[in-house]
Amino acid sequence: MTNNNLQLDANGRLRHFLTIEGLKKPHLTDILDLAESFAPVGGKSVKKVPLLRGKTIINLFFETSTRTRTTFELAASRLSADVQSINIATSATSKGESLLDMLHNLEAMHCDLFVVRHAESGAADFIARHVAPHVSVINAGDGRHAHPTQAMLDMFTIRRHKGEFHNIKVAIVGDILHSRVARSQIHALNTLGVGELRVIGPKTLIPRIFGNMGVHIFHDMQQGLDGVDVVIMLRLQKERMQGALLPSEGEYFQRYGLTEEKLAAARPDAIVMHPGPINRGVEIASSVADGPQSVILEQVSNGLAVRMAVMSMVLGRQPGADSGAEEQ
Amino acid sequence: MTNNNLQLDANGRLRHFLTIEGLKKPHLTDILDLAESFAPVGGKSVKKVPLLRGKTIINLFFETSTRTRTTFELAASRLSADVQSINIATSATSKGESLLDMLHNLEAMHCDLFVVRHAESGAADFIARHVAPHVSVINAGDGRHAHPTQAMLDMFTIRRHKGEFHNIKVAIVGDILHSRVARSQIHALNTLGVGELRVIGPKTLIPRIFGNMGVHIFHDMQQGLDGVDVVIMLRLQKERMQGALLPSEGEYFQRYGLTEEKLAAARPDAIVMHPGPINRGVEIASSVADGPQSVILEQVSNGLAVRMAVMSMVLGRQPGADSGAEEQ
Amino acid sequence: MTNNNLQLDANGRLRHFLTIEGLKKPHLTDILDLAESFAPVGGKSVKKVPLLRGKTIINLFFETSTRTRTTFELAASRLSADVQSINIATSATSKGESLLDMLHNLEAMHCDLFVVRHAESGAADFIARHVAPHVSVINAGDGRHAHPTQAMLDMFTIRRHKGEFHNIKVAIVGDILHSRVARSQIHALNTLGVGELRVIGPKTLIPRIFGNMGVHIFHDMQQGLDGVDVVIMLRLQKERMQGALLPSEGEYFQRYGLTEEKLAAARPDAIVMHPGPINRGVEIASSVADGPQSVILEQVSNGLAVRMAVMSMVLGRQPGADSGAEEQ
Repeated sequence: MTNNNLQLDANGRLRHFLTIEGLKKPHLTDILDLAESFAPVGGKSVKKVPLLRGKTIINLFFETSTRTRTTFELAASRLSADVQSINIATSATSKGESLLDMLHNLEAMHCDLFVVRHAESGAADFIARHVAPHVSVINAGDGRHAHPTQAMLDMFTIRRHKGEFHNIKVAIVGDILHSRVARSQIHALNTLGVGELRVIGPKTLIPRIFGNMGVHIFHDMQQGLDGVDVVIMLRLQKERMQGALLPSEGEYFQRYGLTEEKLAAARPDAIVMHPGPINRGVEIASSVADGPQSVILEQVSNGLAVRMAVMSMVLGRQPGADSGAEEQ
Repeated sequence: MTNNNLQLDANGRLRHFLTIEGLKKPHLTDILDLAESFAPVGGKSVKKVPLLRGKTIINLFFETSTRTRTTFELAASRLSADVQSINIATSATSKGESLLDMLHNLEAMHCDLFVVRHAESGAADFIARHVAPHVSVINAGDGRHAHPTQAMLDMFTIRRHKGEFHNIKVAIVGDILHSRVARSQIHALNTLGVGELRVIGPKTLIPRIFGNMGVHIFHDMQQGLDGVDVVIMLRLQKERMQGALLPSEGEYFQRYGLTEEKLAAARPDAIVMHPGPINRGVEIASSVADGPQSVILEQVSNGLAVRMAVMSMVLGRQPGADSGAEEQ
Repeated sequence: MTNNNLQLDANGRLRHFLTIEGLKKPHLTDILDLAESFAPVGGKSVKKVPLLRGKTIINLFFETSTRTRTTFELAASRLSADVQSINIATSATSKGESLLDMLHNLEAMHCDLFVVRHAESGAADFIARHVAPHVSVINAGDGRHAHPTQAMLDMFTIRRHKGEFHNIKVAIVGDILHSRVARSQIHALNTLGVGELRVIGPKTLIPRIFGNMGVHIFHDMQQGLDGVDVVIMLRLQKERMQGALLPSEGEYFQRYGLTEEKLAAARPDAIVMHPGPINRGVEIASSVADGPQSVILEQVSNGLAVRMAVMSMVLGRQPGADSGAEEQ
């Protein structure tokens, strides 16, 4: 859907970050490497680098998400940017102003970056297509389309635990049909050259088209998890389910909920991931979510580093010899 | 309505900024000149000056306005102040606390400046009359009374395009009756010695009293726009209209909506202004709003510079030889 | 209710601040002394110290309180921390996420301090019991249990006016039954060795258990106020009253509302305190609230200094020889 020329500038540099689709492996490894340099900031006594000082970042949230908004706000603050969040549902356009007029107004206020969350697929693309040349856009989740910063924090987490991608097996489990997270993960894993990629779920929740994306489809969880290095559980997005696509919650848990028993089919050192927020006892048992193989909270920490990296990158401000150093 | 002694201190310095009415030309040109010094900040890589560092600014919004609130927040952030916005409708006074008690509490927290937006005329004056000597008030729009920072950013925009005021003709078009913006613009243009000032609109929307304000009244748009240098369109505030004051939207557009055809009556280098948000196809055609004579988005950019100027001025912190310089 | 080991670390240092109960006199005087060092910040031109720069503070407000939230936000900003407020009622947990999962997520984002306000007693304790070792918790009011920062700002105000505690008489008047403020004040005054402590109110609003807390109970206001140095009025929390616990507002004011006439029974230099927001004409007459003996607004100013002190203390960042100095 996204035209790749949209997110890259004439020099192939990332100007917007809208989707993983169409990016090359070096784009992704650049983000991961830069995030690696930001990861230690969270552990420092002074969690602050001056890289984006004097930049103005606006979170445009057309869809509420306290968690995602908070991580972007914290990432911006730790980069020393000025950040404001606008909840569109309750504001601006209520005066009958069009979305584009609102955008052009914010641009005229010399905003540098919009972080966009929207319930409709393609919203971030639409905005990126219409912003002024000095403005960048990051997609923080649009409909069923993409959630690229989530996918990149997942890649970051996998790389930290497993090193290279080419010799690992990854399984994504759950509601693939409705998941922008899954779409972005599949593109990222393929681009990074994952050894083997599997998706697991009921037939009603796995579109056949995934078979064409270099993905092995499993409907039996035991078979799908056999020997994998990484298990990525998806959130069962109950609010998005319509009609009779899936059985009862109890039956779903029995077939696709990740329990210690089912996890035993994976490699002993397999890691368990989830984008959160988790539905305990629906798609994952608490004993697994809180167990020794879970890296769910690491993903959250890594999310800060990855978002700091993407923000810096699209704004063309990567830490140099000195500039990325912690402030005195 | 505003007692001028209210906004000036014993030395004639601007302590509050409540209304244009009663201010002298030097007050206004001081604001414009100071705004000129802030205008380049928006274009810099680091949009930040340390002028109001350690000052506390509270946006008290009794009436929702995401756009105006955002500009004041950004202006405060770029001056390095600490800024908080309080939406009064949903807070504080809900516990039965009186407005004055809330103000005195905020003062006791050592707030330096209140930016007040209120649906009732005179609200900012009322607050200014009751604050402690160390606190300043800026009126960000009160009822039908005044919106002085909007008027000043309009003056700033006109001066940048037309130079001096004494040899230009300005027309304000639309719903003069309900417009605090128009009231403030008329006072500002008269004080700055505009060559000729016209208001254009249906009889029901132009109070006769404007005839006494040195204003020429026109009900025919073609005649009113003839030979003017500046066209200021007002927003048709549908939510404020009551009863049968105006015809249908379609008929209104036909008579008073600014089209390329009607604009041809003005001087060829006339600029088109609008305080926003615009109602496309109601008071202005998109071809004009987005056309070569429109300076509507410049007004937004200028709004930041003007608000930075007014904030600095009422807080007695104007950039000196060094202090206004960009931070190192 | 609070296990004291919960708020002190192995070295007896304050790690969380949940309740006054169980703390020793030196803990309280340390807070008061540190607050004394922050009190001048509010009066400075640049209200900013760099003590908590790069720290992340989250206000978790499960119960709306614009006033308390604002003071904590301002205190955090003046300490140069990054601060975010999350209104839980309208967010996060609405996606079905459990409170603990949300906490662990915020911890994973490397937040350093949670300021918690909750309508249920024990909420802050619960959270403190479950946070990671690097995270501190401040109770900003939980149900009827405690409001320790309010009590400490009251102690600070009393000490500034009366010096030592051992030779003064203090009366707390009103709805003791429902007041977390009163509970915390009683513990603080007893710990600091107050000369005499009285509570005054109707029988229905003073639990008998207070008789066991070293408190003298009065139901007649004239007798209770006789010769006291400090009068602390409580807010009549109408929203918490149930059934027939108290007479009409008018009758309440007649018996327990503080008027100039009743205040005459206290010492001539007695001070009048109230945690705010005040119900004028219900528990206190305007002539007293705004009168010469009232220190109500001083309490608000002192609240900033005390909250800055508590935040610094639990985060282990007290101003040393240099670090607490105002930034250059």
